[in-house]
Amino acid sequence: MAATTETLTAERILEATEEVLRRHGPAKATVVDVARALGVSHGSVYRHFRTKAALREAVTKRWLDRTSERLAVIAAEDRDAGARLRDWLAALFEAKRHKAGDDPELFAPYMVLVEESGPAVGEHIEDLTAQLAAIIGAGVADGTFTAPDPLTAARAVFHATGRFHDPCHAREWTAPAIDDEFTAVVDLLLRGLRP
Amino acid sequence: MAATTETLTAERILEATEEVLRRHGPAKATVVDVARALGVSHGSVYRHFRTKAALREAVTKRWLDRTSERLAVIAAEDRDAGARLRDWLAALFEAKRHKAGDDPELFAPYMVLVEESGPAVGEHIEDLTAQLAAIIGAGVADGTFTAPDPLTAARAVFHATGRFHDPCHAREWTAPAIDDEFTAVVDLLLRGLRP
Repeated sequence: MAATTETLTAERILEATEEVLRRHGPAKATVVDVARALGVSHGSVYRHFRTKAALREAVTKRWLDRTSERLAVIAAEDRDAGARLRDWLAALFEAKRHKAGDDPELFAPYMVLVEESGPAVGEHIEDLTAQLAAIIGAGVADGTFTAPDPLTAARAVFHATGRFHDPCHAREWTAPAIDDEFTAVVDLLLRGLRP
Repeated sequence: MAATTETLTAERILEATEEVLRRHGPAKATVVDVARALGVSHGSVYRHFRTKAALREAVTKRWLDRTSERLAVIAAEDRDAGARLRDWLAALFEAKRHKAGDDPELFAPYMVLVEESGPAVGEHIEDLTAQLAAIIGAGVADGTFTAPDPLTAARAVFHATGRFHDPCHAREWTAPAIDDEFTAVVDLLLRGLRP
């Protein structure tokens, strides 16, 4: 079969792991299951990921990185910091809501992985907070915002909008009022950042 | 035994239900279990609570009301709205953290009840939001705050502080940075309410 003749990259292993997770749930996403799905020996998967935990960590990181990479584009835009902050928070909410609502087969197993995995989730949050701090810092520099420390302000904004991105709130994201609630929270936070 | 000679009030039934929950968890808190704990017939419990669902709803409501009643005292104080808002939010965080940390035998079963019960939880949130709106309204009246609509602002403050009262965040409440995070969020929200 084709799978065995292509070079076995970490990326191919992670794609296959996502597929296994989607089909069979987190309990079945072991190195042996993934090797079987790829039609390779489990030794060749172990050369890339030495443990099941390392494989799960990598697949979680890849999933989270897709969101941060899209948000980094907004964070880097050269325009009004207020509008950029609002759009960035809306894009974060949209990305999380999309994953929860449109891809439930993958969201449920990922929630289990997120529970298991330490560093990937923490790094993701640090990454997002740094992007927020860059937007707030730019706003402080051009007089749009006031914040004694952009990183502290970024963490506060991140925590204050948890209802709209933390997976523990996923069930609330289909409520009819949720978009108005999001707008009211973001309006208040932007007012809090005014000089 | 003493239990059978006292008048069987709804309050006594609810006390016994809490005790049964604490000892045996939510699966065991049925009308029959509670009647057995009280040494009465289950018919006499049914006269107060017609279904297991009604009993669970009432016990959840009683537990939540204890928090709202304490907070109502702060909301009604006659002093600076900014300090009152800060103290009210701190008292809410403290009450929830206390329940999660110091009474885990009751917190775990209650989380199951909170999942089950519709109206009690929604009414609790409405009650808390109304208290917040009263504080914000008083601040608007005396020029401490600006808010086009105190109830909308109250909901935004409640949602923006969810990390510090929503039970889905309970595991984060023992993190060393949590108190600084709380202060940073509340500072930002109070700045957002400035005229």
